[in-house]
Amino acid sequence: MTPPFTRILRDMPAMTPFVGPETLERRRGATFALRLGANESAFGLSPKARAALTAEIGRTNWYCDPEHWELRSALAAQCDVKPENIVVAEGIDGVLGIVVRAFTEPGDTIVTSAGAYPTFNYHVLGYGGRLDFVPYREDCRNDLEALAARARATGAKLLYLANPDNPTGTFHGRAAIEDLLARMPEGCLLLLDEAYAEFAPAHELPPISGEDPRVIRLRTFSKAHGMAGLRVGYGVATTRLIDAFNRIRMHFGVGRLAQVAALASLGDDDFAAGVVREVARGRTEYEALGRELGLNTIPSLTNFVPFDLATNEKSDRVLARLAERGVFVRKPGIAPLNRFVRITVGTGPERAALAETLRAVLREF
Amino acid sequence: MTPPFTRILRDMPAMTPFVGPETLERRRGATFALRLGANESAFGLSPKARAALTAEIGRTNWYCDPEHWELRSALAAQCDVKPENIVVAEGIDGVLGIVVRAFTEPGDTIVTSAGAYPTFNYHVLGYGGRLDFVPYREDCRNDLEALAARARATGAKLLYLANPDNPTGTFHGRAAIEDLLARMPEGCLLLLDEAYAEFAPAHELPPISGEDPRVIRLRTFSKAHGMAGLRVGYGVATTRLIDAFNRIRMHFGVGRLAQVAALASLGDDDFAAGVVREVARGRTEYEALGRELGLNTIPSLTNFVPFDLATNEKSDRVLARLAERGVFVRKPGIAPLNRFVRITVGTGPERAALAETLRAVLREF
Repeated sequence: MTPPFTRILRDMPAMTPFVGPETLERRRGATFALRLGANESAFGLSPKARAALTAEIGRTNWYCDPEHWELRSALAAQCDVKPENIVVAEGIDGVLGIVVRAFTEPGDTIVTSAGAYPTFNYHVLGYGGRLDFVPYREDCRNDLEALAARARATGAKLLYLANPDNPTGTFHGRAAIEDLLARMPEGCLLLLDEAYAEFAPAHELPPISGEDPRVIRLRTFSKAHGMAGLRVGYGVATTRLIDAFNRIRMHFGVGRLAQVAALASLGDDDFAAGVVREVARGRTEYEALGRELGLNTIPSLTNFVPFDLATNEKSDRVLARLAERGVFVRKPGIAPLNRFVRITVGTGPERAALAETLRAVLREF
Repeated sequence: MTPPFTRILRDMPAMTPFVGPETLERRRGATFALRLGANESAFGLSPKARAALTAEIGRTNWYCDPEHWELRSALAAQCDVKPENIVVAEGIDGVLGIVVRAFTEPGDTIVTSAGAYPTFNYHVLGYGGRLDFVPYREDCRNDLEALAARARATGAKLLYLANPDNPTGTFHGRAAIEDLLARMPEGCLLLLDEAYAEFAPAHELPPISGEDPRVIRLRTFSKAHGMAGLRVGYGVATTRLIDAFNRIRMHFGVGRLAQVAALASLGDDDFAAGVVREVARGRTEYEALGRELGLNTIPSLTNFVPFDLATNEKSDRVLARLAERGVFVRKPGIAPLNRFVRITVGTGPERAALAETLRAVLREF
């Protein structure tokens, strides 16, 4: 009856990149009071995005524009590239899937940091690639020299780097990224995941060239723009790459509401800037909380802060106790990062509630 | 610099399954007055879906449930299967992509009708499959015996059938589908695309078994439920298949608004039934219009009616004249279907406007 699955699928390890908070809520039989584990924005949609989305509800019976023309045009103007340098997909996850698929033959090597974004790894394994991991240095910083050296040594086709980083929050400035680009071996493409770019100093982000063949930049509306549930991400790369991606991407995957909301939010500079300011305030509070509780925190340029619980065992226990008290947070799965608990910056009241709960939990130890 | 694309991508023909009406509008420099080319529902969202969606806007900053648990549970109850028999993705297009990817090794043969759904073909080529086409019989009916025979003769892994059919609107009843299932060769899976199932008589749809290893059923909220722009489709298949699909699918691709709207619409039987009744009324009007204008129409069990313009050339010209007058419709690209123009059933006023324009265009010939 059923035909055999492809060899790649038969050989694949089972892997769930992220267990959603809804799944955890079903398991525990209760909702979370504080949802601070998925680095979602606590600050919602731009009022302009909300208005555009609401106005579009009457047209959800229509398919979306599969070319995302208006959104790509606005993004191109903002990035100072051509619309032909941009691919839009269902979040950065969607773009990563397209890029990995476009380049990965079974057995190809792909380099990333050990403990970096699980969904990237999921795509690599899903297309039969072989992951080669480079440890973080100083526990929490992507080791750019080692990543480039490893890509060269293994003949890697793709090198993945999140900057600012997830799950650590650390950041490399413009000079470091330009140095990495200069070190990229021939035949290796840098996937530069800038999901948290808005939270870093703008002048420290490397300028975007649409025709740099060494890199694809990845950005999203899920974080500063507060649209994780709407699924809009994009990549900036050479027209040659974008042309190829257009031949394999899902054309209608980014719906009408997502497109109009992203377009409107892009036109609301004040909103994203306000989110970034409030998140910076929240990080400062979290750092002060860490000092109060005797926990180191990693200086972060994202919307989350990792708290150092000293050991994997203790961070596991703290995570479990927080969950029992209705707080959803996450932790990295791989040493040495697994001694941290990563907490999203919430609203002021959410931060106050988190602080109170974390104090109570730590008093138990 | 950039690594080589995969061999599949290098060898792929460029292909755009559908040029969107927005693209045509940009080319012509004006919007369409009547959008009747993409078989979108003219009857919008269920009020319950609209209310659920509107209530969810405040949570679009949250990621969706990647397990689609509530929606899958409701679908399972409706289909009389288990939630573990259901995969949800970004429209039927998304499900087709997963299924094709799960089974297609480069060079594998996959059978479909010549002129059937272009996006299925797009996925097959995108994963390196080889398409083998079976002609429609009597111009417009899927030839089930020939499809099964061709699958057997070619050792095909997948056989695609839309029922009710797109782009013809024709339908095979339960006995014919059960006969096809009995004819399916070992090692070949039937992809039964039932996007238009709601428009066919319920008692003539074959009953759904979640554990039939010969078939995956594909359904969507894009048609009767009016959610083409929200992107929700699903597949019903054995738990073994769904397990495998879960290992390669995009987990977060179906956003929060899409999930809550689909769930609410599913709970609003009266709405979909009303759409189906109004569409049937509209088809009757279109058939009468065909008779008035001396054009044969294909009896359709979908939300569109194909009008027979006798030749490919004439249907091309009528399509162009309709576009000049602000009417967006489409036609199949492959003989013998390419002598038809396929027109979506609009609202009453849209149907009246279409009739007036079509009369005017045909007077010019």
